[in-house]
Amino acid sequence: MGSMVEGVTQVLIPVAAFIGIGFALVQWFLVSKVKVSSGLTESGSQNQRNRLIEEDDQEVGVDSDQLVFKCAEIQSAISVGATSFLYTQYKYLAIFTAVFAAIIFLFLGSVKNFSTKSEPCTYNKGNMCKPALANAFFTTVAFLLGALTSVLSGFLGMKIATYANARTTLEARKSVGSAFITAFRSGAVMGFLLAANGLLVLYVSINLFRMYYGDDWEGLFESITGYGLGGSSMALFGRVGGGIYTKAADVGADLVGKVERNIPEDDPPMAFPLLISSMGIVVCLITTFFATDFFQINGVADIEPSLKRQLLISTILMTAGIAIVSFTALPSEFTIFNFGANKLVKSWHIFFCVSIGLWAGLVIGYITDPVRDVADSCRTGAATNVIFGLALGYKSVIIPVFAISVAIYVSFSLAAMYGIAVAALGMLSTIATGLAIDAYGPISDNAGGIAEMAGMSHTIRERTDALDAAGNTTAAIGKGFAIGSAALVSLALFGAFVSRAGIETVDVLTPKVFIGLLIGAMLPYWFSAMTMKSVGSAALKMVEEVRRQFNTIPGLMEGTTKPDYATCVKISTDASLKEMIPPGALVMITPLVAGTFFGVESLAGVLAGSLVSGVQIAISASNTGGAWDNAKKYIEGSEAHKAAVIGDTVGDPLKDTSGPSLNILIKLMAVESLVFAPFFATHGGLFFKWF
Amino acid sequence: MGSMVEGVTQVLIPVAAFIGIGFALVQWFLVSKVKVSSGLTESGSQNQRNRLIEEDDQEVGVDSDQLVFKCAEIQSAISVGATSFLYTQYKYLAIFTAVFAAIIFLFLGSVKNFSTKSEPCTYNKGNMCKPALANAFFTTVAFLLGALTSVLSGFLGMKIATYANARTTLEARKSVGSAFITAFRSGAVMGFLLAANGLLVLYVSINLFRMYYGDDWEGLFESITGYGLGGSSMALFGRVGGGIYTKAADVGADLVGKVERNIPEDDPPMAFPLLISSMGIVVCLITTFFATDFFQINGVADIEPSLKRQLLISTILMTAGIAIVSFTALPSEFTIFNFGANKLVKSWHIFFCVSIGLWAGLVIGYITDPVRDVADSCRTGAATNVIFGLALGYKSVIIPVFAISVAIYVSFSLAAMYGIAVAALGMLSTIATGLAIDAYGPISDNAGGIAEMAGMSHTIRERTDALDAAGNTTAAIGKGFAIGSAALVSLALFGAFVSRAGIETVDVLTPKVFIGLLIGAMLPYWFSAMTMKSVGSAALKMVEEVRRQFNTIPGLMEGTTKPDYATCVKISTDASLKEMIPPGALVMITPLVAGTFFGVESLAGVLAGSLVSGVQIAISASNTGGAWDNAKKYIEGSEAHKAAVIGDTVGDPLKDTSGPSLNILIKLMAVESLVFAPFFATHGGLFFKWF
Repeated sequence: MGSMVEGVTQVLIPVAAFIGIGFALVQWFLVSKVKVSSGLTESGSQNQRNRLIEEDDQEVGVDSDQLVFKCAEIQSAISVGATSFLYTQYKYLAIFTAVFAAIIFLFLGSVKNFSTKSEPCTYNKGNMCKPALANAFFTTVAFLLGALTSVLSGFLGMKIATYANARTTLEARKSVGSAFITAFRSGAVMGFLLAANGLLVLYVSINLFRMYYGDDWEGLFESITGYGLGGSSMALFGRVGGGIYTKAADVGADLVGKVERNIPEDDPPMAFPLLISSMGIVVCLITTFFATDFFQINGVADIEPSLKRQLLISTILMTAGIAIVSFTALPSEFTIFNFGANKLVKSWHIFFCVSIGLWAGLVIGYITDPVRDVADSCRTGAATNVIFGLALGYKSVIIPVFAISVAIYVSFSLAAMYGIAVAALGMLSTIATGLAIDAYGPISDNAGGIAEMAGMSHTIRERTDALDAAGNTTAAIGKGFAIGSAALVSLALFGAFVSRAGIETVDVLTPKVFIGLLIGAMLPYWFSAMTMKSVGSAALKMVEEVRRQFNTIPGLMEGTTKPDYATCVKISTDASLKEMIPPGALVMITPLVAGTFFGVESLAGVLAGSLVSGVQIAISASNTGGAWDNAKKYIEGSEAHKAAVIGDTVGDPLKDTSGPSLNILIKLMAVESLVFAPFFATHGGLFFKWF
Repeated sequence: MGSMVEGVTQVLIPVAAFIGIGFALVQWFLVSKVKVSSGLTESGSQNQRNRLIEEDDQEVGVDSDQLVFKCAEIQSAISVGATSFLYTQYKYLAIFTAVFAAIIFLFLGSVKNFSTKSEPCTYNKGNMCKPALANAFFTTVAFLLGALTSVLSGFLGMKIATYANARTTLEARKSVGSAFITAFRSGAVMGFLLAANGLLVLYVSINLFRMYYGDDWEGLFESITGYGLGGSSMALFGRVGGGIYTKAADVGADLVGKVERNIPEDDPPMAFPLLISSMGIVVCLITTFFATDFFQINGVADIEPSLKRQLLISTILMTAGIAIVSFTALPSEFTIFNFGANKLVKSWHIFFCVSIGLWAGLVIGYITDPVRDVADSCRTGAATNVIFGLALGYKSVIIPVFAISVAIYVSFSLAAMYGIAVAALGMLSTIATGLAIDAYGPISDNAGGIAEMAGMSHTIRERTDALDAAGNTTAAIGKGFAIGSAALVSLALFGAFVSRAGIETVDVLTPKVFIGLLIGAMLPYWFSAMTMKSVGSAALKMVEEVRRQFNTIPGLMEGTTKPDYATCVKISTDASLKEMIPPGALVMITPLVAGTFFGVESLAGVLAGSLVSGVQIAISASNTGGAWDNAKKYIEGSEAHKAAVIGDTVGDPLKDTSGPSLNILIKLMAVESLVFAPFFATHGGLFFKWF
């Protein structure tokens, strides 16, 4: 049976990936039918513009020709700025990647003093496993592959977003429904490309690595962990589009998180996580039709329900999908290792674990909303707005934390750490839909900005505002999923780390662990202080530059001259890149320092502390920021509006920088610890050896 | 030797307490020499006023007679409002105390089904210990005593503060030095009264309980824990003056935290903590003279250094004091229990543990300051001010957490949990000075308010502002001490709880513990959401009431009629009292629910989680609030000032409500768990028994 299942698996996974990629391309083609001529760069643009005007010229009283030209101009400016930003970023990332790849190779190679001899396996002493040096090499390769996939995902995301924004604006002239479909399809392009891309690269890597490793599962999984580290570290430094683009990394990390700790070497579900991901792509594909074809958006009130319905439909369909995969690809019962003892697990246990993760994600996503409170509080000024916003963010952690706790408890009880890993997998299984909804947000936001800058009519701007408001709510949902899954993935990675490092218990009553816990719980604060101050400093510099331009450029105040955009873009590019180095370094260096100097127990404490503390800050920061952003949209009256704008400005670094990067922080520290676990276990704890 | 040391101890402790009380009365007498006639309530006030004017009539161009009268009027109004607030509060507290006392008695009595038979001791099976019912009874009595002491401390604090505020204002007419001395002496009255009072009540209780318990140390310590619970719970509900007034409770709790877990029954340092506290009172007494007599305040620039010097001097002197107590009252070496094994501890180990706690407190206190940044950020508006303030608060957790971690690691390594308990004791040993400095803050703040309301000249207000600004910095120091000691005390209590509940390890890798940790880390957020929203709601109501009065009371706008103060006071009284019920209930109910339904391991996780997470929020909330408050004072320019005021308003609930109550939260949950540990161990974990 094993080989037949494996044969089918070997076909199904790449097929699902190619279906995802194909579907993304179809969506892209549909979006591309909306024409935006860029008068700046293309010749023959006058013709194109004329054509567009013939098709869409429904707006009264505005010079449409002029308008499309303006939109194209703005889109082009955004695209040029974003591309230049990315290329500058890549220089930094290239240096980091090279240095860190060398560290990985040297540290892991040193575990057995760079010996090229095979060693007896850890879990199966009878068999021989590949030398540590080989693991060091393949881990480094996997790290590079993960980094490349992550960077590519970020690049595609940017390209699609800048391709879709002006098109959404122009479609808003037709109807809110057309604009919604354009934005949503573009989101789907991103969602499916990234999900399928991540699955495919991982699938190919595993199969290539197997050619060398053969039956040495331990070595294979040890080295494939590098994939998660590469992906997560790029996501942290790049922060392109926030934490959710690390899906590719997640799957890799997740795969390792489960297998190493709890699965004996002859385990059936080797390909199980990849099959669940493949099924997820198919389910999400079907779900998409409910947004674009089966239902119709007739007015602004339909947008948010439609997006939320996407989540619900994908969750219901995926539950069936999980059942199919669980009951066909898994034997009806099998044995896992559970802290030394064997535990009998049935396939319906696994079905239940994956499903509870999936539904916990939905619960976390759905509870986000009570924005009216905060909007009301603006009536009495900015201070009450800030207080209520902070309070709302704090309150918003309650239900997600209980949902995550229930998922952890149930899945652990059924299948130990393996259960937690597959629960994380369940929460991430509908990621293509989640990403589509999430990517929809910035596209709509951008579309609104373009409408405003192009001087479009009030009606159009109301439509784009409505799209954007729905996007804010769903962005909070996406962030909820991201943090929920980050918590589960990190816990699974933590379990794998503990196992790989050979730790028996992580006892809070020992001072090594307790101070680790305390310092770990502090790290998200330190990190947030750095990121928020960075955003604050960048904002200060920008305000001063704008003031300088108004004072020194003649005619700017009167509107007869253009401002010097390039300098502004340069300021924010430089700030973003330079200011991400200290917080990034904090995250990357902490596990290395903790493990090398204070040993694996302290590091385990640090990981647990940063996990339980980081989850809270990430959720509250996202929801506080989201609430302020939406409050601004409900507000009438100039004083109240001013108060709302202050809240919104404070909320940006919270919801766009601190929150999403904290998800990456907790995963990254866990996966980095896992990758370096053999080194720490062999050479770590120097401080205690010295004293 | 034992009996001689004990005899001396029995004399020294009450003597030190009476010296403290006597010193407080002398300081009170010195403050009372500043005369404030209340024209409203006393007859013959005209004469007194005349006398005061003759003494102090140095201000030019202001009708001093009128001015003193106004100050007296304002002081009287504040005092009447505060007293009415406290009496209303006592009604709620009486109900709570009665109900909770009944719960304690019933829960603990049920441990052995209300049997009146003696049982073999837990730690010394050969001896017989008093029945569980007796422990239930004495725990309840101790709880009531603790509650009473805490309420009395709050009451005295309020009385002294309202007695001192107008006197400080009036002294500010002479010089900033005179005003400083009046405010500082009043703070000292409070500090010494509370420290000595707490020591005395605890000393008397222990001696009375011993008359029943005799050699049954286990029962004695079990029941005396109730003292800490009573004190902390009142402090939480009352929040009178913030967390630091729980010192009385701390010492009691601390005493138990150490003895139960690690000390065999024939231990020498039974009275050691009380001796350290007694020495602390003497050291602080000497330290006070440096502020009031040895050095002089010649200008506003001297105030803050003088207050900070107090801390440094008391720390240096106390180090010598600790040495004296450690090397005379302790044998040169003795044995403690350490997780089942015996551990040999030398007296210099203990000296080192207490000292490291003391010095860690100083470090935490001293690092608070970088306010300039935040003040600068006001130039670009309220949003940057809020962002920088939040970032500063987050950053401010780094050094305190490292300081606490070092103290924990060193003291645990030297003397296990006992070391942590005495480190907490060390940090709290100079509490009389800490309280004096802390109480100085609100007095100066109030004095400034009175100066403004009484329409005093610019010079006077500059002086009171300077006093107040120094008070803000030192308040942050006081809060640093409070949270640092809360962390150490809670950890010691946690250790005692684990031991009393019979838990061997608290392993993060078990799902019971991990979800406890995650939910525990969430509790401070839930709690802060409640308290901040309460403050926000109260503020909203107040703003609406003020608007209503302006609209409906004729002549108010023109200043010819007085506003209806009584309604405003009633609104804030009602709000404060009602809105404290839900967060208070959350803290009190959580350990009961967690222990009863999910058992002692989950509860241990909850305690550890709330400790490591609560410390961070408490420190960051205090420092963010303090920084905004001070930023307001550095600011010039009307727009920047508006921005600063917004920050300040947001900061109030953070630094005055959330921050200080979180200290109490973590201690209270730990001490409550400890008190109920026998019940949870016997009847707890119902949920897991059912499923």
